Amino acid sequence: MGTVKSEDLDRLGRVPLFQPLPRETLERVTHGALLRHFPRQTRLFDQGETPDFLHVLLDGSVQMVAEATNGRRTVVEILTPVESFILAETLTGSPYLMSARVLQPARILMIPAPLLRAQIARDSQLALTLLGSLSAQFRRLVRQIKDLKLRTSTQRLGCYLLQLARASDQHSRVVTLPYDKRLIAARLGMTPESLSRAFAALRPLGVTVQGHAVHLADVADLAAHCKPDQLIDEREPELPIEQD
Amino acid sequence: MGTVKSEDLDRLGRVPLFQPLPRETLERVTHGALLRHFPRQTRLFDQGETPDFLHVLLDGSVQMVAEATNGRRTVVEILTPVESFILAETLTGSPYLMSARVLQPARILMIPAPLLRAQIARDSQLALTLLGSLSAQFRRLVRQIKDLKLRTSTQRLGCYLLQLARASDQHSRVVTLPYDKRLIAARLGMTPESLSRAFAALRPLGVTVQGHAVHLADVADLAAHCKPDQLIDEREPELPIEQD
Repeated sequence: MGTVKSEDLDRLGRVPLFQPLPRETLERVTHGALLRHFPRQTRLFDQGETPDFLHVLLDGSVQMVAEATNGRRTVVEILTPVESFILAETLTGSPYLMSARVLQPARILMIPAPLLRAQIARDSQLALTLLGSLSAQFRRLVRQIKDLKLRTSTQRLGCYLLQLARASDQHSRVVTLPYDKRLIAARLGMTPESLSRAFAALRPLGVTVQGHAVHLADVADLAAHCKPDQLIDEREPELPIEQD
Repeated sequence: MGTVKSEDLDRLGRVPLFQPLPRETLERVTHGALLRHFPRQTRLFDQGETPDFLHVLLDGSVQMVAEATNGRRTVVEILTPVESFILAETLTGSPYLMSARVLQPARILMIPAPLLRAQIARDSQLALTLLGSLSAQFRRLVRQIKDLKLRTSTQRLGCYLLQLARASDQHSRVVTLPYDKRLIAARLGMTPESLSRAFAALRPLGVTVQGHAVHLADVADLAAHCKPDQLIDEREPELPIEQD
């Protein structure tokens, strides 16, 4: 538990999306917000519940989990700072479609939903900021649907490894899996068994795994086979609404 | 080609989402907009292009198509009136991630992107309206990702048939497929061959197909097997932003 400190406002103000917001707006929105630390595995909320707060992840990581009525679970997204969740529900008061679980110990700013809604009705710059944020969130889901519907499991894993390679040191041919394999399988829409089969299918393309380390012997060959595509694989930036 | 008529404004004003907007706002936003008829198969825009207009579908239907670099195609969404597309790109000026094709002859209002962006910066009610719209669009994609990741092809088809049955006359046990099977397969994330296999797998549950007519002999048994879930299958309404 805690209150919002000046450093946190500085932190929010440096996020590209929040940069156009004047300091007073950030102060107004975060006044009345709670700042909390949550340990690993904390259930922040469950699908089906009605949202009380907009959550803004400042440190740590959070997974958005979807559960079927038969108990089957999957991971829709893994969030890293600074990211808000789930804006669509908080604004419309609709029940959550996903549950949120803390993956790495998290520091989260919780903005009461009525406070946020009252502020956006008064402040068009804030409304534009949130439109930009929601646009980026929408586009990330479109990318995921394309990844799920246009690729085989093997191509999906290959493109994921190429993304990790691009995000790390360009000269390194060894990428480190950022999560355990069960979580990566869920994020990629596979069972753990399908993930193992996909790794095996990539072996002839020079991909070898040792624990969390994956060696990519021939990045060009892997790319030729898996066909990375910037309209699927590029990280979606949060852009402000363009003003001409 | 044409200009926006009073009836069209009436039509827009009756859409739940646009109801909170005063008539002047609708007039301001649509002044300078184009109203066009497009025949079947028209390519409205292609993925990768930069958006010039917000499209608002008034009549007909439009499919949002995604294409892989290897030429593989899928259908992300099938839109029916009244629906805007694609708001996220129009607001942020990001390249389209999907292409739009006319499925049934369509009448479309095209609002120039700079005009829309200028209006939302001035008009907080319009910004709220668009936040509500984008929220619903985001939630529809979450539902689709859950459908893709949590269900087998057979369950997905079963739940789709149950949705069609719910949307039609409650007492009818015959549903009519609204599109050809190739398109339904793409929308459900299957090949046409997988769709045929899924129909065959549903036969022991009383599902029989004759052309576009599907007979559901035992809806309860089908539901018990396919487990419809309101957090996946319910049609997402466009809600205004709640004001307390």
